[in-house]
Amino acid sequence: MRAEILSIGTELLLGQITDTNAVFLAQRLAEIGIPLFYEATVGDNPARLAAVLRIALERSDLVICTGGLGPTEDDITAAGIAEAFGAPLEVNETAKATIEAFFAKLNRPLTANQVKQAMLPRGAIMAPNPTGTAPGFILEQHGKIAIAFPGPPNEMHPMWRETVGPYLQARSGQVIFSRTLRFAGIGEGALEMELKDLIAAQQAVTIAPYAKLGEVHIRLTTRAVSEAEALALILPVVAKVRARVGRFLYGIDEETLEEVVGRMLRAAGQTLAVAESCTGGLLGGRLTNIPGSSDYFLGGVISYSNALKEGLLGVPAATLEEHGAVSAETARAMAEGLRRATGASVGVSITGIAGPGGGTPEKPVGLVFIGVAATGAATHAWRYEMWGDRPTVRARAVQQALVLLRDVLGGTEALP
Amino acid sequence: MRAEILSIGTELLLGQITDTNAVFLAQRLAEIGIPLFYEATVGDNPARLAAVLRIALERSDLVICTGGLGPTEDDITAAGIAEAFGAPLEVNETAKATIEAFFAKLNRPLTANQVKQAMLPRGAIMAPNPTGTAPGFILEQHGKIAIAFPGPPNEMHPMWRETVGPYLQARSGQVIFSRTLRFAGIGEGALEMELKDLIAAQQAVTIAPYAKLGEVHIRLTTRAVSEAEALALILPVVAKVRARVGRFLYGIDEETLEEVVGRMLRAAGQTLAVAESCTGGLLGGRLTNIPGSSDYFLGGVISYSNALKEGLLGVPAATLEEHGAVSAETARAMAEGLRRATGASVGVSITGIAGPGGGTPEKPVGLVFIGVAATGAATHAWRYEMWGDRPTVRARAVQQALVLLRDVLGGTEALP
Repeated sequence: MRAEILSIGTELLLGQITDTNAVFLAQRLAEIGIPLFYEATVGDNPARLAAVLRIALERSDLVICTGGLGPTEDDITAAGIAEAFGAPLEVNETAKATIEAFFAKLNRPLTANQVKQAMLPRGAIMAPNPTGTAPGFILEQHGKIAIAFPGPPNEMHPMWRETVGPYLQARSGQVIFSRTLRFAGIGEGALEMELKDLIAAQQAVTIAPYAKLGEVHIRLTTRAVSEAEALALILPVVAKVRARVGRFLYGIDEETLEEVVGRMLRAAGQTLAVAESCTGGLLGGRLTNIPGSSDYFLGGVISYSNALKEGLLGVPAATLEEHGAVSAETARAMAEGLRRATGASVGVSITGIAGPGGGTPEKPVGLVFIGVAATGAATHAWRYEMWGDRPTVRARAVQQALVLLRDVLGGTEALP
Repeated sequence: MRAEILSIGTELLLGQITDTNAVFLAQRLAEIGIPLFYEATVGDNPARLAAVLRIALERSDLVICTGGLGPTEDDITAAGIAEAFGAPLEVNETAKATIEAFFAKLNRPLTANQVKQAMLPRGAIMAPNPTGTAPGFILEQHGKIAIAFPGPPNEMHPMWRETVGPYLQARSGQVIFSRTLRFAGIGEGALEMELKDLIAAQQAVTIAPYAKLGEVHIRLTTRAVSEAEALALILPVVAKVRARVGRFLYGIDEETLEEVVGRMLRAAGQTLAVAESCTGGLLGGRLTNIPGSSDYFLGGVISYSNALKEGLLGVPAATLEEHGAVSAETARAMAEGLRRATGASVGVSITGIAGPGGGTPEKPVGLVFIGVAATGAATHAWRYEMWGDRPTVRARAVQQALVLLRDVLGGTEALP
């Protein structure tokens, strides 16, 4: 079965919106093993839509359309498909009742053009739209399948999950299953080296590394007839990967580093505070992305100026003068002063030169020190030279602070 | 001249990348007044590319291709266009010299497949690639134009700007010019109401509102034969808009609110500090996005826990107990304590319930208080009920704090 995606809407041709629907559908088709050979985009013009549909139905077995299913004059997709298949539009009573109920709930009168959305080509299976008024449909005739979705992604996605995906999945008889292993503290190159022979020998399970900002993901993917069978293929590969680089593995699938660090703090009954200079609060912002982070995160100090490093964190003026604000000595004094000021069991500090200005030959843009002070351990500061522009240096510094926190909290033993 | 965009690459059909090139080109074509009727995507397959090119050259006058120009076997675009136009591939000496120089600089040997990139269809104009090795080209024959770009956006964009854009601009003889007016402190609906008759009467200059998180942009666009003429059409409309809603206008084109606030602080010789509870450092993070923000931003306190509100900001325990951490009283005490602790001329505080947990009927999720304490003014706290999920509530609170700062700093008079 050869598939084609057809995106319908003049706003696409004006560049007013990005066609994320085509990407979503391409990914889903790949997951269920249906090859996609073409994508096409056309505006809200009946003659051009008819021409594009004719080409698509000649060269492809399955044509998935998005857009043009609404109530207005511009919405021409259902009529176009009806015409191409010679299947006249008829009112679908279920669709009509759903639209009526929707408007009744809103206490708004049902206009004639709303009813238009309930018109489907004869013989089509309705695809209910749980988040909007325009239903989609599946029309299978003359050995060809046409599928129509409304354009808004928040309507299209649940319709794929609930109706169209299972329908095509059954036709394809395959399931694709992925597991993502998330690593931090090791670069993409080094990780690939460690797994080189596994990657070269990959067969049923593909092993794909993806470099992210300050972390690397390894995506293991396999195709099977059921999720259980896919898992049985993937788990031995996961075990092999973990045996080699498990100490850098911090999470599985959607877990974030701030989530993992938060869970470790909560489990250990410890509290955390931050002292941020060049990152200006971004580390605190990221830690507090997690609902319930107040269980372990106390807050901290944004010590952007030297005056606040002295005043709120008690960094000695002599340290700042002798070693500078961006130094291991200042990072350590910030972390220790932070613990004194907040009573946190762990204090982490960041000081650096985010750029673009402020660099010198000895202290270039990208130089960052991260300090950690914790109960029962010597305070330590680590030195980094981060590359990239100002936002990248800042984001890398935040990421590295989280990696260090995980290590300090014993993360390399506490594998997920 | 009818245009068509052709995106070439199997990775697009697998959904591994989003086709931002098509969006970029669609926008640029719209700007220079060239109508775009079709877009198509095809994989790295010579037969299917040939078929798609044949269809495109039948129905369109201008076919712009992206992708498939590199050195490998998979890169089939130049050969496909050469075949379709009957214009054999030949080595372009300028292109070859550029590639040789590139590799000489890297001290790497030039391989045979690299030279392939210097092969252009006979009669093509080379489009230099300032950021990569594969040049693009423009081929105009038999009343049709084919243009080929490499796929990476960072290569394609400068090639558009330097070569292809001016070429097509000259063919079209038109320029589109836009000016974006950025408003904060007024909603999209209210702004549209104020400008309703202007929007209804729009002719040469289109007036389009865009709602963003916590701000609204009005985009004024016109088409003319020169930028000077476009500006002459737009400026009177800008003046009309400003006469009505100028007090909410904070910036023009790419200016951000944190930039404007920073400029006002610097001009007034004032310093700023922040005390953040539910936003956890995000306001500080945003203020320090701006290089040189250390001129006016001192830092502050992330008072996520009540202990730090008391300990670092001196919020009285009685205030917290009587009114709660999320209250106008606490917000005021935070802002005043912050000024005492930091010596900043302006202190801004944020305390709220970001959710999803922690809400009550009296204090629902989304309730946020923002306090401002400043030299020579009574401390005040504003109450908001923000809607949205946790990240949205937090981002809105940060945005609103910046809007308030602009107001407090006299922003409504200091129009850009």
